[in-house]
Amino acid sequence: MVEKIAPVAVDAMGGDHAPGAIVQGAINAARKGLAVVLVGPEPRVREELSRHRAGKDLPIEVHHASEVVEMHDHPGQAMRRKKDNSIRVCFELVKSKRASAMVSAGNSGAVMAGAIFVLGRPDGVERPAIISVLPALKGSPLLLDMGAVVDCRPSHLVQFALMGDVYARRVIGVAKPRVAVLANGEEDSKGTDLTRAAAAALRKAPIHFVGYCEGRDLLTGEFDVIVTDGFTGNVALKTMEGTAKVVGEYLKRALMSTTVSKIGGLLAKQALEGMKKRIDWREVGGAPLVGVNGVGFISHGRSDALAIENAIRRAREAARTHFTDEIANAVAPTEALLAAAEPGSANGEAEPQRRTAPHEA
Amino acid sequence: MVEKIAPVAVDAMGGDHAPGAIVQGAINAARKGLAVVLVGPEPRVREELSRHRAGKDLPIEVHHASEVVEMHDHPGQAMRRKKDNSIRVCFELVKSKRASAMVSAGNSGAVMAGAIFVLGRPDGVERPAIISVLPALKGSPLLLDMGAVVDCRPSHLVQFALMGDVYARRVIGVAKPRVAVLANGEEDSKGTDLTRAAAAALRKAPIHFVGYCEGRDLLTGEFDVIVTDGFTGNVALKTMEGTAKVVGEYLKRALMSTTVSKIGGLLAKQALEGMKKRIDWREVGGAPLVGVNGVGFISHGRSDALAIENAIRRAREAARTHFTDEIANAVAPTEALLAAAEPGSANGEAEPQRRTAPHEA
Repeated sequence: MVEKIAPVAVDAMGGDHAPGAIVQGAINAARKGLAVVLVGPEPRVREELSRHRAGKDLPIEVHHASEVVEMHDHPGQAMRRKKDNSIRVCFELVKSKRASAMVSAGNSGAVMAGAIFVLGRPDGVERPAIISVLPALKGSPLLLDMGAVVDCRPSHLVQFALMGDVYARRVIGVAKPRVAVLANGEEDSKGTDLTRAAAAALRKAPIHFVGYCEGRDLLTGEFDVIVTDGFTGNVALKTMEGTAKVVGEYLKRALMSTTVSKIGGLLAKQALEGMKKRIDWREVGGAPLVGVNGVGFISHGRSDALAIENAIRRAREAARTHFTDEIANAVAPTEALLAAAEPGSANGEAEPQRRTAPHEA
Repeated sequence: MVEKIAPVAVDAMGGDHAPGAIVQGAINAARKGLAVVLVGPEPRVREELSRHRAGKDLPIEVHHASEVVEMHDHPGQAMRRKKDNSIRVCFELVKSKRASAMVSAGNSGAVMAGAIFVLGRPDGVERPAIISVLPALKGSPLLLDMGAVVDCRPSHLVQFALMGDVYARRVIGVAKPRVAVLANGEEDSKGTDLTRAAAAALRKAPIHFVGYCEGRDLLTGEFDVIVTDGFTGNVALKTMEGTAKVVGEYLKRALMSTTVSKIGGLLAKQALEGMKKRIDWREVGGAPLVGVNGVGFISHGRSDALAIENAIRRAREAARTHFTDEIANAVAPTEALLAAAEPGSANGEAEPQRRTAPHEA
């Protein structure tokens, strides 16, 4: 029997192209059988639905939310002052189980604030993180945090690793994720005080920790979970985005440079479009939150209908796995791991308490 | 009259392909009229020279250095214990003005240690940095530090900006460099305590400081000097390298996917090679040091003859500008800038002392 799952709540008002592109994405998803609740000012959302000629037979509901969080709004203040904002209402639907997950392309700080405010955190989670699913040569490596926690302590990185491990196993489907800390070199002596302390603790964790990974390894698929502070994660992610764009621009210029290369470009066009699709952030469908009691996906602010449709699909898939149930257990040993890794502790003698041991034979 | 300039000292023993590729690169440079001193164990270097059939008329000297720093050697210890190592001897030639600059593809930590140990720092420089010259769509933006100073204080970032400004003006030839701090967003409220403190001080500096820049802006050419701590700089640089490689791999796969796309790829081959060359790190020729009393270039460990030839050319060009003479003046206001930016200081009333004001009309 296929598990029945509640629809995905979609913030109709979030993103540069809202509500048009968002509603269109929801319609596309609904046409493929994915149930959606569009959240936003009802008259506005219904108007969009009729403009897109969504049939009444589609699995789309509309849930009213009278207020909208703007991109310049302060996240925390927006949650407190605009009590009926579409992001917050999405999370309330998730909390009351009327939605299985939520998707928003709006103010990402407000999405994180809403998640913490409405859903709360599993026991023991210090700071929730935002995961970026990378378009690697093979696999789907997770990079976290991509911007939620800018100034990190070692315990944050340790928890990102433990939570990322859960997500990689349960949602991505990697049996034994290779977990690494992002650093400026492979040797243990590299890194900062922060990365060295986190790596020392993670060596004792009940996960497959493989040490440091470098910027050049993010897209090779050699690592499944890569943890870093939100500042570095954000810089790395945007650097990838910018580099791919610039290389694409060089490619375009190269193909336009001579008549022969133009013909070559035309002949290769379909294949090149396929490549573009492979590295297109819209295919990834958004960045999942981890460390909150429910499933939320932050989509790119520039999301179009395709990005939203994909985000709805991924959010639904994530919700089906109930991975959030495992988070509290996963982060439970954080303090013990850090204590065991401290210089002078009885290293290796007193193992940290294992409340979960997912990889044991 | 063209200024006579001493030859460039080249560490014949540094890098994965030393001494063969290094000697070949030096010969290529010499054939184009660039004078070189090859530094390393003399019999070995002479053997390579004769293997490459370098004519005796080429402007190549050999300077003996009996020891070699290995990649696993501790930089500081190598400088102290291997007193006659090829990196150190290169810097001694620079110090005694028998060489105008040095180039090494060896242990980059040892190159930096050698520079500090032998050349020393201009007055007031806290920490020298390594500059990466980025292959941007337009211009040649400088990213620093790329790995020398991993744990940074605000004063370090401020000095990187002031020194990078000098390098951009004097060596790259940008009249009024746009200087930025790398961060996780454009708004002043973004960043870490480190970046906010540095940005506040730089707003008062006698340079054209334009605020934060993001990872996606590194290669657009909108910024001329981008400063960050050595950890983030290293991650960003290797992320660019890795992304370009992965996009290239996707491109290759796309072009090989069908018969038609294969033909297209063949027709576009020359143009694509041109693109590859544009983003090839070997064309950049290495990373200049800044904040030491002399000119040193760190080349990629995988440098081949082309990379070495380009590094020799760039090092020589940098030496001709005598940019190092301006560094002490540029960093002189560091403390005053930081003090003026502190909350509670008489902001804007007591301007920091300007010992240099390069952009004043």
